[in-house]
Amino acid sequence: MPKHQLNIAMIGAGFIAKAHSNAFRQVGHFFNIPYELGLKVVCGRDHNKLESTARQWGWEEIATDWQAVVGRPDIDVVDIAVPNALHAPIAIAAAQAGKIVLCEKPLATSLAEAGTMAKAMREVPSLVWFNYRRIPAVVFAKRLIGEGRIGQIYHYRALYLNQSGNDPSKATTWRYKRSEAGMGAAGDLLSHSIDSALYLNGSITELTAMAHTFAPGRDVDDATLLLVRFANGSVGTFEATRYGVGRRNRKTFEINGSKGMLGFNLEEMNQLEFLDATEPLNQQGVRNVTVTGPDHPYSENFWKPGHIIGYEHTFIATLGDFLGALDRQKPSHADLDDAVAVQRVLDAIERSAASRSWVKL
Amino acid sequence: MPKHQLNIAMIGAGFIAKAHSNAFRQVGHFFNIPYELGLKVVCGRDHNKLESTARQWGWEEIATDWQAVVGRPDIDVVDIAVPNALHAPIAIAAAQAGKIVLCEKPLATSLAEAGTMAKAMREVPSLVWFNYRRIPAVVFAKRLIGEGRIGQIYHYRALYLNQSGNDPSKATTWRYKRSEAGMGAAGDLLSHSIDSALYLNGSITELTAMAHTFAPGRDVDDATLLLVRFANGSVGTFEATRYGVGRRNRKTFEINGSKGMLGFNLEEMNQLEFLDATEPLNQQGVRNVTVTGPDHPYSENFWKPGHIIGYEHTFIATLGDFLGALDRQKPSHADLDDAVAVQRVLDAIERSAASRSWVKL
Amino acid sequence: MPKHQLNIAMIGAGFIAKAHSNAFRQVGHFFNIPYELGLKVVCGRDHNKLESTARQWGWEEIATDWQAVVGRPDIDVVDIAVPNALHAPIAIAAAQAGKIVLCEKPLATSLAEAGTMAKAMREVPSLVWFNYRRIPAVVFAKRLIGEGRIGQIYHYRALYLNQSGNDPSKATTWRYKRSEAGMGAAGDLLSHSIDSALYLNGSITELTAMAHTFAPGRDVDDATLLLVRFANGSVGTFEATRYGVGRRNRKTFEINGSKGMLGFNLEEMNQLEFLDATEPLNQQGVRNVTVTGPDHPYSENFWKPGHIIGYEHTFIATLGDFLGALDRQKPSHADLDDAVAVQRVLDAIERSAASRSWVKL
Amino acid sequence: MPKHQLNIAMIGAGFIAKAHSNAFRQVGHFFNIPYELGLKVVCGRDHNKLESTARQWGWEEIATDWQAVVGRPDIDVVDIAVPNALHAPIAIAAAQAGKIVLCEKPLATSLAEAGTMAKAMREVPSLVWFNYRRIPAVVFAKRLIGEGRIGQIYHYRALYLNQSGNDPSKATTWRYKRSEAGMGAAGDLLSHSIDSALYLNGSITELTAMAHTFAPGRDVDDATLLLVRFANGSVGTFEATRYGVGRRNRKTFEINGSKGMLGFNLEEMNQLEFLDATEPLNQQGVRNVTVTGPDHPYSENFWKPGHIIGYEHTFIATLGDFLGALDRQKPSHADLDDAVAVQRVLDAIERSAASRSWVKL
Repeated sequence: MPKHQLNIAMIGAGFIAKAHSNAFRQVGHFFNIPYELGLKVVCGRDHNKLESTARQWGWEEIATDWQAVVGRPDIDVVDIAVPNALHAPIAIAAAQAGKIVLCEKPLATSLAEAGTMAKAMREVPSLVWFNYRRIPAVVFAKRLIGEGRIGQIYHYRALYLNQSGNDPSKATTWRYKRSEAGMGAAGDLLSHSIDSALYLNGSITELTAMAHTFAPGRDVDDATLLLVRFANGSVGTFEATRYGVGRRNRKTFEINGSKGMLGFNLEEMNQLEFLDATEPLNQQGVRNVTVTGPDHPYSENFWKPGHIIGYEHTFIATLGDFLGALDRQKPSHADLDDAVAVQRVLDAIERSAASRSWVKL
Repeated sequence: MPKHQLNIAMIGAGFIAKAHSNAFRQVGHFFNIPYELGLKVVCGRDHNKLESTARQWGWEEIATDWQAVVGRPDIDVVDIAVPNALHAPIAIAAAQAGKIVLCEKPLATSLAEAGTMAKAMREVPSLVWFNYRRIPAVVFAKRLIGEGRIGQIYHYRALYLNQSGNDPSKATTWRYKRSEAGMGAAGDLLSHSIDSALYLNGSITELTAMAHTFAPGRDVDDATLLLVRFANGSVGTFEATRYGVGRRNRKTFEINGSKGMLGFNLEEMNQLEFLDATEPLNQQGVRNVTVTGPDHPYSENFWKPGHIIGYEHTFIATLGDFLGALDRQKPSHADLDDAVAVQRVLDAIERSAASRSWVKL
Repeated sequence: MPKHQLNIAMIGAGFIAKAHSNAFRQVGHFFNIPYELGLKVVCGRDHNKLESTARQWGWEEIATDWQAVVGRPDIDVVDIAVPNALHAPIAIAAAQAGKIVLCEKPLATSLAEAGTMAKAMREVPSLVWFNYRRIPAVVFAKRLIGEGRIGQIYHYRALYLNQSGNDPSKATTWRYKRSEAGMGAAGDLLSHSIDSALYLNGSITELTAMAHTFAPGRDVDDATLLLVRFANGSVGTFEATRYGVGRRNRKTFEINGSKGMLGFNLEEMNQLEFLDATEPLNQQGVRNVTVTGPDHPYSENFWKPGHIIGYEHTFIATLGDFLGALDRQKPSHADLDDAVAVQRVLDAIERSAASRSWVKL
Repeated sequence: MPKHQLNIAMIGAGFIAKAHSNAFRQVGHFFNIPYELGLKVVCGRDHNKLESTARQWGWEEIATDWQAVVGRPDIDVVDIAVPNALHAPIAIAAAQAGKIVLCEKPLATSLAEAGTMAKAMREVPSLVWFNYRRIPAVVFAKRLIGEGRIGQIYHYRALYLNQSGNDPSKATTWRYKRSEAGMGAAGDLLSHSIDSALYLNGSITELTAMAHTFAPGRDVDDATLLLVRFANGSVGTFEATRYGVGRRNRKTFEINGSKGMLGFNLEEMNQLEFLDATEPLNQQGVRNVTVTGPDHPYSENFWKPGHIIGYEHTFIATLGDFLGALDRQKPSHADLDDAVAVQRVLDAIERSAASRSWVKL
């Protein structure tokens, strides 16, 4: 069966674009997909970066005018890997040109913007890169919850800590500017934690939040903390910060339910902590399950039991699932609705932090 | 030098009274104190429990009328190890009788009550059993902070999780009734976390809190969660719950500062996590310091390096320090002011949870 | 029921004598024993140490002539807490005087000496302080093995690492001299590991060993390493060293069997690692069981679930079990035979290391 | 600068061939290499496997006659990813045909065979896939040792545990047959541990070993255990087993030296344990360094700090370094001499296990 050709234009040539390039190159090696991906053009502002990205990853062309690129008839997919403030114009233009749209998270810099984007993108297939949904340990956690192994959920607590803010040399990137990023730690880090929570524990009904900026003169949050209530009756805490000194990329969740416990830490992303509270009490203990198979999510795709995967595989699996769903004309998540749901929580957080009060969703 | 005799009356014969009895028996073995402790009388309601406590720990007499006991001229020290609602009447009576008062935490069932107690107890030496202040790892954390090793503190986060609430057989004890306990997880668990935070990170200026009860019909909180701001500019989260399924006695804190990180977990109380952020970046990592000496708090008192201490030593050290201070006529902590400070925070938490708003302290 | 009086003479006033004193003081608080222990006399060479030990722990008298002490008619129990080379003369004299003998491990400085001691001590009740048999996690491991939860055992591996040898200030104590200690790391550390292995995994049929001394001029082993075969068909490795820099008191074992795994580390002695290999593969993981109850060994004696015990409790439990068995006229372990069995392995190790060949037992 | 074309023939289409295919596809994305790799032909016995490997990884052709393939003039590189017994004939033929040879480990099924291979391969560039040398944490360990941070090394201990032998369904693969694998756990697992030890701690001067087979009728070792002496004066233990139930891929080492400690576990391969014994004693603790940059080996090649790499990156880095060295006409390790050195130790192990005696190297 001949494969269908999909030509890709990637907008952006920074760190995350490297992860995307890798996913485009690797997805066919690990997933059976009915598409041939053409790495047609990489588009950005910095000529040197574009040259090196193209050379390293085999992009056929480089370009600096995204509007022109988005309009090209030979492009099927527009992949957006640029600062948040540019997501909306590019995504809307791409959707209007009928392209498949892949967009980095968070979708937008505001809920209103997200709504406009969603409306414009409704007719084209799209994906938002909430890649941490595809960590095998996270998918396995979802499966255990779905099978009732955790019982009624009481608590959900999530951290996302890094220490980038404590490093003055980082303070000048776009991620620290409201005009380009929209939010600080909340958009960058917390959005991932919120997406994981909605995926694993369902919708949030109300929250109260605090945003704090440690660095004088900075106009985005360095840390955002919140208390929430979920629709399923559980309560939760979230904390995301760029001043979590000592932690490089610590995205965690812990879930306590009537029948068990789950724990996860992105820094050791091949493992899932699981406690089965239905066992005899004297044999209960938090166990470390290495989620590399057998019978674990994606273990058929990657290596064999005990042979760990890395950061990049979350992008590969995200893309593999999306392309499989595209072929079968089925939805794949995180989709527009998922991304807008995250944005709705981020919006409530901003309103709560500003008003110093509980906000219902 | 002959030792001064101190005769003790202990009110209470439950689990915590066992820990106190042990401290009275052991303090002279590990601390050089100028007192001979007389275990004179144990007083309570349950005759069998009193008998077995007296037999097991060598209390000379048993009694059931605490008022009579408190008034006895041969008693120097009244130790209060009973449900929270009884702290105030016993402590006040004991203080009025001129006794030294040792009182379990939390001091009171309300801030008003705590105020009344403090006023009555002002003239006598007293101690509130916030025993976790005396964990060597916690004292060492305080020392490192004091030496500036953590720098400017950004974040303080504290958990106290157990799973007692998920066990229906526990639901009938006094700890689950407002009339006897005053508060639920907040008084029992969170009060310890608050005391540790005030000790390590200074005063709290404002907070917003959520209290939640999972069990139908129960009139105290099963879980209390809060966001806080400290006077030193740091922000914090606290969570205390009896529905932390999978965790038996998980009292933790993590502190992120400009120069380093500290982490602690009561379940592994002989260890302190420490990261020195002033080292070369490629050598930074969270290190596990086993705080059993040499040159660690209390390492001269207990065993030798690598030989761990248990739960009970926190009471022994609390008592050892108190008696040493008593002899030198110096203050010892946690004292009345410390206990009232915790109560003030607990009060703010109740008001915040009820009003669903930020409360200033 | 009136308690029977047992008067104790303790020979020795060093670190381990402190642990023994504590056990004598505490055993009645945690175990129901039908004896009243009289701390009659502490005997040693250093007058100041004796004075302070007596004062701190309430020994009634001090003495410097152990022969005289051992012969006193008012003494029922002789407890030996002195350098290894003195075990034999004191134990034999005490046994000949009809005393109950409690002796520190290792029993002797040679197998021949152990044989002589065993012969002399056969008629009196005796105990050898292999205290780590009484760690709740270790007893629980034994129980799981006995219930068949680990299946056929394949592997047993044991480490005992400390770093005392790397500290020149320690090099002058008796533990580093053949004339006083008999062996180095092998007697001090490895003997504990051997006792645990015999207890948990049964007898050793053959072994090959290497002994190594890092410090020039020292006449005992700094490290001893061995390969063994057990009677149950499993194979094992042991390593004991005083040059395990980075480790303070790391006594570990790991057992792999057809149905599961067990792991233990003395530095975290309240925990037992357990993996159940009969569960679905995708849910298998090493779990950390905190062995503080409920339904764990000694959990009725000490504190409540999640409240850890320390080093000293292993001595208390050893003594509690011994006194209980004494009253019921039953054997209690580790007894003479157990201690001789360890000595037999140590002897085989010395012969193997000297001959550089496998030695059968 | 135009890239030089290198056409590759890969012999083998099993699990490890997948890892090699990935390396060929990915090396140019993460390393600047002056070669264009042509994935010309994959050769093996199973037609279906060849088809799927070719399709999944883009090999241009499939073939079943390795002799023909090796002789093809359009092939520059022969990559050997087949059972051990086939390494020699293929490698020798390829070398005689003047090809660059990449060969899986262990190099051969015997030392004699390795010698013959080495002689034949001396004139062509070659690589033996001891890929675990390229783990960033391992390279960083080597760097710290080289800088003297660990001081004089006392102890080296290594485990390689998996549980494949306890799974009867695995017992029929070539790895469990002497005729195809040469050795069992020793060749498969221990060879990796030996290579790491020689790389990190230098040459071994003598050893004593035990080999054990648990499964009746199997003609290779299921477990091999040894004691060794290194030329640098340190002593070591090694254990490799397929009956390490509870462990999936636990390749560890721990090194204790006069100035510090290092520890590593392949299951958490992005971390290195490090203890600096020159710090104040009360601040010493084993720290977990996440070796993902900055200033860590290969951190420029892969992702950013805190974003972990997986199993496959060890192959990519091995190949990247080899191709860089090839271009500069420099040696790259592990080379033939390294592989023969491992084989020499494996040979000594076999002789020691058979003769039950120490063997000098």
